[in-house]
Amino acid sequence: MKQSKFFIPTLRETPKDAQIASHRILLKGGYIKQVAAGIYDYLPLAYKIIKKIENIVREEINKTEAVEVLMPALQPKDLWVESGRWEKYGKELMRLEDRNERSFCLGPTHEEVITAMVRDYVNSYKKLSIGLYQIQTKFRDEFRPRFGLMRGREFLMFDLYTFHKDEEDLDVWYKKVREAYKRILERLSLDYRIIGAGSGNIGGNASEEFMVLCDIGEDTIVYSDSSSFALNQEICDLKEGDPSPDGKGVIKYAKGIEVGHIFKLGTTYSELMKATFIDQDQQTKPIVMGCYGIGISRLLMAILEQHSTDEKPIWPKEVTPFDLHIIPLGDNLEQGLKVYEKLSKEYDCLIDDRDERAGVKFQDADLIGVRYRIVVGRKASEGIYEFQDLLKGEKKELKLAEIEKELKK
Amino acid sequence: MKQSKFFIPTLRETPKDAQIASHRILLKGGYIKQVAAGIYDYLPLAYKIIKKIENIVREEINKTEAVEVLMPALQPKDLWVESGRWEKYGKELMRLEDRNERSFCLGPTHEEVITAMVRDYVNSYKKLSIGLYQIQTKFRDEFRPRFGLMRGREFLMFDLYTFHKDEEDLDVWYKKVREAYKRILERLSLDYRIIGAGSGNIGGNASEEFMVLCDIGEDTIVYSDSSSFALNQEICDLKEGDPSPDGKGVIKYAKGIEVGHIFKLGTTYSELMKATFIDQDQQTKPIVMGCYGIGISRLLMAILEQHSTDEKPIWPKEVTPFDLHIIPLGDNLEQGLKVYEKLSKEYDCLIDDRDERAGVKFQDADLIGVRYRIVVGRKASEGIYEFQDLLKGEKKELKLAEIEKELKK
Repeated sequence: MKQSKFFIPTLRETPKDAQIASHRILLKGGYIKQVAAGIYDYLPLAYKIIKKIENIVREEINKTEAVEVLMPALQPKDLWVESGRWEKYGKELMRLEDRNERSFCLGPTHEEVITAMVRDYVNSYKKLSIGLYQIQTKFRDEFRPRFGLMRGREFLMFDLYTFHKDEEDLDVWYKKVREAYKRILERLSLDYRIIGAGSGNIGGNASEEFMVLCDIGEDTIVYSDSSSFALNQEICDLKEGDPSPDGKGVIKYAKGIEVGHIFKLGTTYSELMKATFIDQDQQTKPIVMGCYGIGISRLLMAILEQHSTDEKPIWPKEVTPFDLHIIPLGDNLEQGLKVYEKLSKEYDCLIDDRDERAGVKFQDADLIGVRYRIVVGRKASEGIYEFQDLLKGEKKELKLAEIEKELKK
Repeated sequence: MKQSKFFIPTLRETPKDAQIASHRILLKGGYIKQVAAGIYDYLPLAYKIIKKIENIVREEINKTEAVEVLMPALQPKDLWVESGRWEKYGKELMRLEDRNERSFCLGPTHEEVITAMVRDYVNSYKKLSIGLYQIQTKFRDEFRPRFGLMRGREFLMFDLYTFHKDEEDLDVWYKKVREAYKRILERLSLDYRIIGAGSGNIGGNASEEFMVLCDIGEDTIVYSDSSSFALNQEICDLKEGDPSPDGKGVIKYAKGIEVGHIFKLGTTYSELMKATFIDQDQQTKPIVMGCYGIGISRLLMAILEQHSTDEKPIWPKEVTPFDLHIIPLGDNLEQGLKVYEKLSKEYDCLIDDRDERAGVKFQDADLIGVRYRIVVGRKASEGIYEFQDLLKGEKKELKLAEIEKELKK
């Protein structure tokens, strides 16, 4: 990809109103642009990373046998009246009327729509269990939108709903999703902890949260360095430095931001919305449900929070927008394009083909955060380039064949 | 994929209120489900095909050097006041207020948002040309939503916007998009014609429409069988059967539905919204724009209209939801699963693992419309299966190795 075409509108000034590093990088680096409070354009750089995150989520969730659907943003009031949420949900629910004065809301979640989708069809235990998910735009009229994509009013979510004949069957799928979430966060190179809302007895909880550790987190969590499991500070009387319950580690405190939630819904919605089935014993029973969410746009910020230093990101392998950033300096564009042509056969390369000074190019490159960089500079005529590994902080003068060897490692 | 997990809620009855074949197939075949008038769930079968259509669009459009972004559905009123469309656009524009009584609309198109995105950054001719596109949910409060996804209120669109220093530069990109559209429709196996709104002089038009030929189309078009180019009946005084202007063919009449539109916007929006740049001659000029749309969800129906007979679809190769449909009958599920395991290594297979009668399985399979089918029936114990090619109308009794050979053709 040629940088001149990839629309990365970087800013020279650091935006003053952005309070956290990830938000500043996204604005300054031309990843996103604010359209209104809590509402953003995803520019090419951010959207390319977002799509990689989405695909990792898809790949891991597909392994649980869940399948993808797409539900509408516009949801009719009558469904929300059935569940009782039309009244209960406050001002965060965005409401509107169509040209015929029928009321709708813009979906902040899809329990109502999916329960209505499944109830007409699933009439027998034979058709259970089923898992349906989507990756879609959600709306929530936050009282105070802030931290960029962290707490927006229009945002990207993954949401999965599973349907079962009993709690046991729900448990099985719940555990599969839990494992999928762990794989997702590991592939995203995120340091995280799982918080049980209940006793800490895994699998027996009604709900668990996946928290990414970072200073700007809104919750304080308590965990042992011997376990991926953690507790909310409120329900925990352990102090930092105490020996952990399992005796294998030491208690630590950290701030965390929630990026995922898994939840045993039970029969709340199916009872209210009359989603029932005939069981093997010929009894009519409400369908047992589970629901599971991941904040896709929030993950983008969480990765930035954990993978940037001095407001410069280095994107982890699985979500890097490009494999290689080729930067020709001075009058070496032609030579740079040759390197680009060659390496593009095997790697997804970005080449800075703009007519800009070296300083501007490096400043922008630091915001783009591709780990491997090839500078086509003054020794280009001899076929020697500077190969940089940002993560290791290494710079080497190498020939193209040597660079290819380095990349193979 | 196991059919028991793939949620295909087929209906036994043909829906009475669906007026056209493609709409009936989508409802009866468990592809979509209505949530409200003109608002639908995309169930797994439809959404899998939709994603294939989207990827074909992406692949071909990426070749024009356009890049993907994602803009919000919620658009602030002030941008629409700038363009004058807040007043002009009638009841089709869905409007709402947030908790602070600020007005928004739900985007039916994104000229305002994208012009605002680009104008802050593109200050010099050096930064032009640029092409930005998205594939995204759009909203239009149709007076009378109908024909399922054909004229919905919430629908999936591809929209591309290009930005140029002059008309000449716009022409270059316009032609590239035009070629990309042709490749897209060819890959989707659609029979289509291009209609110029103007004189018919290709490239000199302000706007062209891509019409898929089908009986339920809303426009009558006039074309020569010697050319892919067509005219609107209103501006054409040729009669069916007349010799065509180029003398190489005969004039035909047909109904068509618009699936794509390419449009030389010029400086309409950039002037109103003050999107200007400094040209090489140091003059401040408005950016010249092009805009281009494809109805993604409408394409799904257009394909169905052209690729179904007696309300049974056969999906074209590039968008088929699965490569192979394996149908075990009676007590041959175990044997069927073996065939499935083997073929899944190379093909995307759907296996009907449900405990249903043969009649039900075939009825559903006819609605799913996978061209190649393997029936695991009474000769399964001898390792012989019925291999069906729905398009050729062929059925052969073959061993697995022979089936693999057939598929390789």
